[in-house]
Amino acid sequence: MSGAEQARRARAYLLRVAEPPALALAGLVAEAGPVRAADLVRTGQAPSAVAGETAARRHLDQVDEDLARAAAVGARLVIPEDEEWPDWPFLALQTAASRRMACGVAPLALWVRGRDLGALTERAVAVVGSRAASGYGEHVAAEFGYGLASRGVTVVSGAAYGIDGAAHRGAVAASGPTVAVLACGIDLAYPAGHTALLDRITGQGAVVTEYPPGLRPARYRFLVRNRLIAALGGGTVVVEAGQRSGAKNTAAITRALGRVLMAVPGPVTSACSVGCHELLRAAEAVPVASVDEIIETVGRIGADLVRPETRPSSRTDELGPEAARVYEALDRKQGSSPDAAAVESGVPLSRVRALLPELELIGLVERRESGWWPVALRKGRGDA
Amino acid sequence: MSGAEQARRARAYLLRVAEPPALALAGLVAEAGPVRAADLVRTGQAPSAVAGETAARRHLDQVDEDLARAAAVGARLVIPEDEEWPDWPFLALQTAASRRMACGVAPLALWVRGRDLGALTERAVAVVGSRAASGYGEHVAAEFGYGLASRGVTVVSGAAYGIDGAAHRGAVAASGPTVAVLACGIDLAYPAGHTALLDRITGQGAVVTEYPPGLRPARYRFLVRNRLIAALGGGTVVVEAGQRSGAKNTAAITRALGRVLMAVPGPVTSACSVGCHELLRAAEAVPVASVDEIIETVGRIGADLVRPETRPSSRTDELGPEAARVYEALDRKQGSSPDAAAVESGVPLSRVRALLPELELIGLVERRESGWWPVALRKGRGDA
Repeated sequence: MSGAEQARRARAYLLRVAEPPALALAGLVAEAGPVRAADLVRTGQAPSAVAGETAARRHLDQVDEDLARAAAVGARLVIPEDEEWPDWPFLALQTAASRRMACGVAPLALWVRGRDLGALTERAVAVVGSRAASGYGEHVAAEFGYGLASRGVTVVSGAAYGIDGAAHRGAVAASGPTVAVLACGIDLAYPAGHTALLDRITGQGAVVTEYPPGLRPARYRFLVRNRLIAALGGGTVVVEAGQRSGAKNTAAITRALGRVLMAVPGPVTSACSVGCHELLRAAEAVPVASVDEIIETVGRIGADLVRPETRPSSRTDELGPEAARVYEALDRKQGSSPDAAAVESGVPLSRVRALLPELELIGLVERRESGWWPVALRKGRGDA
Repeated sequence: MSGAEQARRARAYLLRVAEPPALALAGLVAEAGPVRAADLVRTGQAPSAVAGETAARRHLDQVDEDLARAAAVGARLVIPEDEEWPDWPFLALQTAASRRMACGVAPLALWVRGRDLGALTERAVAVVGSRAASGYGEHVAAEFGYGLASRGVTVVSGAAYGIDGAAHRGAVAASGPTVAVLACGIDLAYPAGHTALLDRITGQGAVVTEYPPGLRPARYRFLVRNRLIAALGGGTVVVEAGQRSGAKNTAAITRALGRVLMAVPGPVTSACSVGCHELLRAAEAVPVASVDEIIETVGRIGADLVRPETRPSSRTDELGPEAARVYEALDRKQGSSPDAAAVESGVPLSRVRALLPELELIGLVERRESGWWPVALRKGRGDA
């Protein structure tokens, strides 16, 4: 057996016997290597901290079965020794700040269905939010998913109902890249209603998990999983989050990892946006209202800057203040003499006499026998 | 005639003959006093800068007529020499920064219909926004107007259609204080559709303007008027603003005056909220989603702080991480043995044996002959 295959089998075993995040085990693997670490655990000789993390399951030596169950659904085990391992995204999981949040452990390996994980995560953004989303939230998540994926930015999310699903669906609709991170075994479709969606994600992106085949999702696993979503995205967009949404957990992890956190404003009358507005009010998140703004926020400075929208302009916008006052002072029904315009506008008569012909030149007023008349303009959308 | 009445007549004359903001005239009045300044203007002896501001209208000596026209609609001329003059709010108009924005001139006097202006502006917030508002925007403006006014905070706005009108109506519905600042003469109802609303505002607040009776509104007058709205409010809330809304002008003035600027988030799919989101993204405005947040933002520190909303909590929230894992690992259909719970949760068997009776004590699990069962709980609104 090659060294790589030994490492893969060792990591498959360790993913089965330790519940992530297993800090002590991660330390042992880093120190002794995966093969020696697996031997120590299997034979009951691991240091006591590692033994505590593995005692309940270390007898579950079912590597062949796990690899077979994964292969049966078209999945493989990707390990740090592989070319496609996302080294760079996972670096953030090894900082002191992330350790303090107990999210600071890179996965020992990842079960993957789909394309090359390294290529997929080179330029990626996490798009997350509540399961109990509003129609508005799902619409925005789908639009953002579509827009990011069609610009070649991978949409990372958690495959849940609501915002997650809408973001993935948007990316799928754009035939663009997307990655779903599960909180259960790679052979389980969770939620069941997203079975077809997960298959489509596999076709143009990847479905990944650190949990061994067959393992059921559980609430704490969603929280542990969230660190991978935050790490794989170059930044995280929270589309909608209620008061108690798990998306707020992903948001906190995003900040702990030093990634940029973004939140989408929504109606202040909507309970679904309360979490987003809290993040904005605490200045913990940057507001984003469009795909361009997301790319500007996470993108390389200079390369992806948003072009400021050109303002719809009105012909009177370019007038100086006195000319504008004279123009507006003209009587629209009866026209005005220069004297009347001076009185109405408060601009000295000598200036009014100079400005009226200038306004005539640019087509804003016309001279008739009865005086000076403003030329009717199509109104801009501005208001005072 | 008393000195105060002489000053009042002088200021009435000056409001008629100079189009605000008249910086040179303001300087002359500050230096020479209103009576002497009026004499100099009337007789054509004012310094040249002042002459430029007054030449077109200085012959309009119609103080008696103006006072009579105002009195006919129940209005009076309030001058800085009066007790009720809002000295403190207008101080901000005399800073160098506000001068640079050309909004830095306090009014020479104000035509007022309604209650004591000093008392009304002691604790006030400006609530402004587009005329072309959405149903959402009008709803929020009315709610904010109602909530502020019912807490005794005066709602200052511009009486326009859309957001302004909704904010005033909310305050009126709360029978609370509100101030409308017009860009036309006090005897004109503008817009005409708000005639009845302006009467109601007068009843429980005030309608004010620096423009003399009969003067028509004009676009540049709305912009000049906006500085008074920003100055009279202790802060400004922009409820909705499109790309070209005049509310963006009031927002810029608010910042130039050193007042706190707030913006209400809205759907990113709504053109009516584009201006608010721009202000938030540029970090020029603080997001506000409720009346409590507005009061916290403008209020005296400590006196008006928002009580953080108590989070709806779930009984499993207080569990430690191991106990939570064990609780979730229990099979809801068949119950679990301690061994099964240890394997499923990854928590060592010895800890599982200790935790299960603890969970039983707080009523989260029960022991039956077939093993340990989780007790069904009403689900909280949280999601993962």
